[in-house]
Amino acid sequence: MPKQPLIVGNPVLVVVDMQEGGAMSADEAGIPVMPGHAERVERAERLLAAARGAGVPVVFFQEVHRPSGIDFGRELDGTEGVHCVEGHSGTDLEPTLRPDLTGAHPEFHIVKRRYSGFIGTEFDIVLRGLKADTLILIGGLPDVCVHYTFADAHQRDYYVRVVTDCVGGSSQYRHDAALDAMEYLQTGAMRTTEEILTAFRGLNGPLDTNRPVLEGASR
Amino acid sequence: MPKQPLIVGNPVLVVVDMQEGGAMSADEAGIPVMPGHAERVERAERLLAAARGAGVPVVFFQEVHRPSGIDFGRELDGTEGVHCVEGHSGTDLEPTLRPDLTGAHPEFHIVKRRYSGFIGTEFDIVLRGLKADTLILIGGLPDVCVHYTFADAHQRDYYVRVVTDCVGGSSQYRHDAALDAMEYLQTGAMRTTEEILTAFRGLNGPLDTNRPVLEGASR
Amino acid sequence: MPKQPLIVGNPVLVVVDMQEGGAMSADEAGIPVMPGHAERVERAERLLAAARGAGVPVVFFQEVHRPSGIDFGRELDGTEGVHCVEGHSGTDLEPTLRPDLTGAHPEFHIVKRRYSGFIGTEFDIVLRGLKADTLILIGGLPDVCVHYTFADAHQRDYYVRVVTDCVGGSSQYRHDAALDAMEYLQTGAMRTTEEILTAFRGLNGPLDTNRPVLEGASR
Amino acid sequence: MPKQPLIVGNPVLVVVDMQEGGAMSADEAGIPVMPGHAERVERAERLLAAARGAGVPVVFFQEVHRPSGIDFGRELDGTEGVHCVEGHSGTDLEPTLRPDLTGAHPEFHIVKRRYSGFIGTEFDIVLRGLKADTLILIGGLPDVCVHYTFADAHQRDYYVRVVTDCVGGSSQYRHDAALDAMEYLQTGAMRTTEEILTAFRGLNGPLDTNRPVLEGASR
Repeated sequence: MPKQPLIVGNPVLVVVDMQEGGAMSADEAGIPVMPGHAERVERAERLLAAARGAGVPVVFFQEVHRPSGIDFGRELDGTEGVHCVEGHSGTDLEPTLRPDLTGAHPEFHIVKRRYSGFIGTEFDIVLRGLKADTLILIGGLPDVCVHYTFADAHQRDYYVRVVTDCVGGSSQYRHDAALDAMEYLQTGAMRTTEEILTAFRGLNGPLDTNRPVLEGASR
Repeated sequence: MPKQPLIVGNPVLVVVDMQEGGAMSADEAGIPVMPGHAERVERAERLLAAARGAGVPVVFFQEVHRPSGIDFGRELDGTEGVHCVEGHSGTDLEPTLRPDLTGAHPEFHIVKRRYSGFIGTEFDIVLRGLKADTLILIGGLPDVCVHYTFADAHQRDYYVRVVTDCVGGSSQYRHDAALDAMEYLQTGAMRTTEEILTAFRGLNGPLDTNRPVLEGASR
Repeated sequence: MPKQPLIVGNPVLVVVDMQEGGAMSADEAGIPVMPGHAERVERAERLLAAARGAGVPVVFFQEVHRPSGIDFGRELDGTEGVHCVEGHSGTDLEPTLRPDLTGAHPEFHIVKRRYSGFIGTEFDIVLRGLKADTLILIGGLPDVCVHYTFADAHQRDYYVRVVTDCVGGSSQYRHDAALDAMEYLQTGAMRTTEEILTAFRGLNGPLDTNRPVLEGASR
Repeated sequence: MPKQPLIVGNPVLVVVDMQEGGAMSADEAGIPVMPGHAERVERAERLLAAARGAGVPVVFFQEVHRPSGIDFGRELDGTEGVHCVEGHSGTDLEPTLRPDLTGAHPEFHIVKRRYSGFIGTEFDIVLRGLKADTLILIGGLPDVCVHYTFADAHQRDYYVRVVTDCVGGSSQYRHDAALDAMEYLQTGAMRTTEEILTAFRGLNGPLDTNRPVLEGASR
């Protein structure tokens, strides 16, 4: 039984690496992934629309590596091949899951070089600016980028949820195991798209985080 | 097939949370753990002796929380109960697995408040001081502290190994899944105690890291 | 004119490196410091007493380096000589400025290896646990450890104040310049002991942060 | 007398916030700055050309804030007004000081939201990828972004130099004081453009860091 409500304080929807390579084979994309990418994209679209409607901020992560390979770190020492190279096919975000950076709704595009969204990025700066409390994770891979972003968020005192039918692992076994590991950290972390949609509907419209924040002295 | 040698550059043995609570029930220690603690301690003793003989530096992590609970973060929102409280039974390091801070061999005792040894600690400072390249992890839990320390080390470009018969998980399923996840990150990460002992024997005695380093200008 | 009140939200008193070496010569302690250490200690005692009376949590930093020199980093490449060595004379905290870790008042002792209190320590974990908003810095050196702790806190969105008559620099010039630099970052950062004492008196007794926090689910 | 050579190991040239606003008044750009911007740009151009000729990698920092103000943190609580807003006049990098991301020479463009180049960025990932040892800082402001980037690099064990005639402070007093503070940290940190040009000429052409690094197993 969950020890905390689904949403505590201010929620943020975090779309992890929903890139075009998710529909490609491991040979093409460098990363193995379970089938069902199109269905996950469709669910993500619904969650994104609901977040926008409810005023829930959205962060879009995109894993990108420079063609020189300089920023791969140790990522090529394991199962994954060369992946998410800048300018290569498959690296772009899914066309329907891209931030609108010009509107009033707070949306953020963050490029990352590692699995965790907290490493080498401005994610924590953005979350503090948003006064975020609860992170809702979708995308991939639940056993790599989603899992390690979850663990880092958990260890930074955020409430974290993972949408089980809107993530796809590198294999069914690793998918299941990672979800189980996240549930171990925060009981009730595993949630479905429908539960999140219902929760977003229950919010009282655009949040306080939408307010202009340039006043300086009054902040 | 491993893409890298077992030991690349300078190795460090990292003993993760081998505390007396490892022999207690989940009710007593707050954390579930597979049987076999005594056997793991015995293997760790052999690895520690071999590290000392080969001049391999050793870091001993100890998870400790203040009785007020102020530093638990979100750690009580999941499966674990109150655990590793300062002054409570079970929080002490195993008596045979404690650092000797007075000798010439470089040993380090690092208290941590989170799962990963990199969060809120001087671990990275120590590793840079040692010019460490390869971390060899033993202790517990492979599905929590060991796994997240591994992932953080991996994402900071260290070569990382986990000694499969010298770690014990919160359950057999999570134990196996975590080892598989680490192997996904670095092929050949999973190693046995015997393999490590053999590798330590092959090192050329005390490393360069043992040298006095107080000269300042010459460093 | 300050753009923010002296205390915003929850304050924490941060005692930076008030160690016995502050009364020693640069030759003895390795670090040059302006005269007036005894007066600064006396003011710090009054601030500590006031913090305890008002329920303001206190963090005591202590810079300590291992005798092997392994954790000095580049600290010996500049003006400072070997300093704050574990077990050496001058490294201990001033006897009247030590944490009482056994009482109900939240006090913390944090050893650090670098100038900034945020690097390689659990400071941020503690501050999040305390839900701290405003840090009030005293101790030394305003041009080194206090300045860089201030800058890091500022860049992590904390409100920060420095008590101008309770810090002592490596020289009058660097003392003045560092205070000016902190005031540049947050107008009104420079405050006197008397101002802080008055502000502490105006608080409504022990804060919410004193509450037991071990309930888990209710946190 | 310097305790270390000008360049230790692998150097990187770090161009800090050389944006068009450097030529604007404080009223226009939000940030006060000493006159001499054009001369500093001219010197930076020469340093950049020399770095490219010698194979020294170059990192170009650009401070950018979102128009919503969400990522300003506490930066508006002090002397600076709204500055470096995305899409505003003055935020672009100086036209002659922009990275060429398509060539073989390793150049990097890193947007930052805080003063220090290490906070909320991939800087450390890039530096590790380059196996960088010595950072040579130019740009602005020596008393803010350059100083805090220097301090963070110093505390992460890098050798750091600041080019005194290729940085310009928020005032002459703060300019001088910040240079003095950096020299306190690493004796010999203060260097002139000519000294750096001479040192670059002495390097043995393109460094090892130019090599292709996509081989994975061989890295």
